[in-house]
Amino acid sequence: MADLAENSAVRGCMVIKPYGYAIWEKMQAELDKMFKATGHQNAYFPLFVPKSLFEAEEKNAEGFAKECAVVTHYRLKTDPEDNSKLIVDPDAKLEEELVVRPTSEAIIWNTYKNWIQSYRDLPILVNQWANVVRWEMRTRLFLRTAEFLWQEGHTAHATKEEALKETRLINGLYANFAESFMAIPVVQGVKSESERFAGAEETYCIEALMQDGKALQAGTSHFLGQNFAKAFDVKFATQSGGLEYVWASSWGVSTRLMGALIMTHSDDNGLVLPPNLAPIQLVIVPIYKGLEQLEAISYVANQIKTELEVVGISVKYDDRDNFKPGYKFNDYELKGIPLRIAIGPRDLENKVVELARRDTLEKNLVPMDGLTHHIQALLEEMQTNLFNKALKFREDHITEVDDFDAFKSVLSERGGFISAHWDGTPETEEAIKKQTQATIRCIPLTENPTEGKCVYSGKPTSQKVLFAKAY
Amino acid sequence: MADLAENSAVRGCMVIKPYGYAIWEKMQAELDKMFKATGHQNAYFPLFVPKSLFEAEEKNAEGFAKECAVVTHYRLKTDPEDNSKLIVDPDAKLEEELVVRPTSEAIIWNTYKNWIQSYRDLPILVNQWANVVRWEMRTRLFLRTAEFLWQEGHTAHATKEEALKETRLINGLYANFAESFMAIPVVQGVKSESERFAGAEETYCIEALMQDGKALQAGTSHFLGQNFAKAFDVKFATQSGGLEYVWASSWGVSTRLMGALIMTHSDDNGLVLPPNLAPIQLVIVPIYKGLEQLEAISYVANQIKTELEVVGISVKYDDRDNFKPGYKFNDYELKGIPLRIAIGPRDLENKVVELARRDTLEKNLVPMDGLTHHIQALLEEMQTNLFNKALKFREDHITEVDDFDAFKSVLSERGGFISAHWDGTPETEEAIKKQTQATIRCIPLTENPTEGKCVYSGKPTSQKVLFAKAY
Repeated sequence: MADLAENSAVRGCMVIKPYGYAIWEKMQAELDKMFKATGHQNAYFPLFVPKSLFEAEEKNAEGFAKECAVVTHYRLKTDPEDNSKLIVDPDAKLEEELVVRPTSEAIIWNTYKNWIQSYRDLPILVNQWANVVRWEMRTRLFLRTAEFLWQEGHTAHATKEEALKETRLINGLYANFAESFMAIPVVQGVKSESERFAGAEETYCIEALMQDGKALQAGTSHFLGQNFAKAFDVKFATQSGGLEYVWASSWGVSTRLMGALIMTHSDDNGLVLPPNLAPIQLVIVPIYKGLEQLEAISYVANQIKTELEVVGISVKYDDRDNFKPGYKFNDYELKGIPLRIAIGPRDLENKVVELARRDTLEKNLVPMDGLTHHIQALLEEMQTNLFNKALKFREDHITEVDDFDAFKSVLSERGGFISAHWDGTPETEEAIKKQTQATIRCIPLTENPTEGKCVYSGKPTSQKVLFAKAY
Repeated sequence: MADLAENSAVRGCMVIKPYGYAIWEKMQAELDKMFKATGHQNAYFPLFVPKSLFEAEEKNAEGFAKECAVVTHYRLKTDPEDNSKLIVDPDAKLEEELVVRPTSEAIIWNTYKNWIQSYRDLPILVNQWANVVRWEMRTRLFLRTAEFLWQEGHTAHATKEEALKETRLINGLYANFAESFMAIPVVQGVKSESERFAGAEETYCIEALMQDGKALQAGTSHFLGQNFAKAFDVKFATQSGGLEYVWASSWGVSTRLMGALIMTHSDDNGLVLPPNLAPIQLVIVPIYKGLEQLEAISYVANQIKTELEVVGISVKYDDRDNFKPGYKFNDYELKGIPLRIAIGPRDLENKVVELARRDTLEKNLVPMDGLTHHIQALLEEMQTNLFNKALKFREDHITEVDDFDAFKSVLSERGGFISAHWDGTPETEEAIKKQTQATIRCIPLTENPTEGKCVYSGKPTSQKVLFAKAY
């Protein structure tokens, strides 16, 4: 209803509408700045992965083979039975099928093979903004779509330590982006083996909690070890004259972040946008009867608009005559515009405006004098307020649990994260998942080892993890 | 050799390397700003077009059917004969094949159908940055690749006049971008019917001339009439209560512009970048013996760098110790960096730097005092100089021709554009193409009708067009 996206004629693929895309562009611009500030460069690699490359890294191939779109032909021809129709031309079969990239490790490491000879060629710190396709069976707008937009970083390093450092650096960058820019609190952690990226040695992640009590994986950063270097035979001459396999990381966030945004901040009136993400931060609506009143209001509204734009606030003045103020108010609430100013004839006389906050829905009369400063401060306050609100919700929904009955009742009655000891075995993890649908979201980085008993098996363990039902 | 791009493991698909991509990002940023300044918004539509939608607009389908990548399956499985291999899973055949978009009119107009009910929903001014795939038989880096990056605008209007105005507006915008930003002079014109975009009523274009005398179509803007509205049944309620088909335009430029850039400005030493397009506008190379000299030079070099960056000039200080100055000079020349400063110990004493221009290859000693202003002015001068140089070349290579023998000899000996009368028939156009490989690049917008005889058929005609061999 906020006009962000819609389903398309292609199963599982979405159309991102202009308003939704404008928010995504804000995310892109900020992330891109952060990547470049940490020494990364953008590049572009092919959409297609030849099958023989795709299958080179076994685990990666196994992980994605079940859900990939495959190009088998390169031509259509007129249907001889119906001239208005086209059919696949059987004479245009590809010698080798092409997989539409579900992720680009394979095609990129096959390329890096030619870029890397010596330690002097390292590190490679490359990012790509691209579309990828995973033929998921159950799809949902923004959260799980067959095609989605993302960035994928692919780095190559001379040492394990350096690759690990990069993996952690980016996970921290993602956490910082989610919290400071999107006002979404996240837990940083590592995945259990079964939840790891196919082909990774370790997967770092940021996990957010949605208002319905379900967790959402908002970004991942993978330490790939030498797996892809071995699969594609990428070795480098070391400074001391040896020959070694290259170490790797890969990391990505996607249009799924749009889903995180929607489900973290929205309320019953619609979307709520943190000021940082709002394509329009403030809208001005005139309340008037007749052209004379409108002209007087417009004069002041445009002054306010100009002053706000000078300090970098994006403003829309909506003087459309064919929509009533009430309709406009509702529409901008639905769309989550952070601030709304209404100006009527009496406000002009009193030199005030009515200022409405989207986050708290409060309305106040505010003097026109000093309005720009007031609004600047308010937008900052709202950004912080939204984060704090989401943080409080998250903190209220992390429940420490010691036994499996409590685990089940908390999960079904309260939801959220459950912090519990886990014996570290995939069997326990699987059993809990089967009985409760909860998965291990992550082993939090901040968690200090504490002795305890596994919430399911009762075995002693020092490892505490976060469980939740997840998107 | 300038490290812009390379061929990939996928036939006809390129890898755009970081340096090439950084130049493309400059183009994107400027174009995006120009689109938004003229009221356009970005959105994103699916990569795939279901075959039944693809075939809806007959001419468009016919034009692209011969060269499109087709997805037929959505899963791979382990090869029962070799566990390390994957094969297409015959059980995962799509009910309807999906075409990888060669252009997005079909999927977009199928979407617009739901967006447009009344005149109030118009105009729609939407642009998309995306990858597209056209399975060309002969490919060439940047100029003709199976996958390429582009932007495609798709607009919907209530009247024919408005759609035509939009089509022309964008062609003018492209011309302005090519000339002012890329320093590439272009001829604006319309295509002959045989060169029109499949599904268009009229194709406007910008045509550039490369240094080898061949023309390059650098951008196109299509007036689509009501063709797609009819194919997808997109009607709107008019203000007066009627029901009419919507009018459309579409327009695009692509990574082909990288090819235009390379072939317009390069010289025997490598790429020459107009300052507007240079990711690094100036490089500073220290000339030193020993650490003490390097430290003294670095101090000054970093001062210069900071001062230049303050006024928005992008600077790299290359103090790498494992490469000699001569190697660096060559490398930056290859990469087309507009300005190079070399600083040695004697320069420090004399308070000068050696400043080398990439466009003219001139070197001069320039006082450090006032250097920033000097460089600002010089970068502007170089931008203009490159345009003027290319313009002179283009003007020198437009030859007026009256008979077909002259046509042939100019084409083979001098190349470039040939300005000649054409009788307007596809037969003549085809015959000329067959005998000379020259095509009608465009009917220039600026050309006033003048009476004359067709260069091939001798028939009287007032229409003069530009012929050339083209990429």
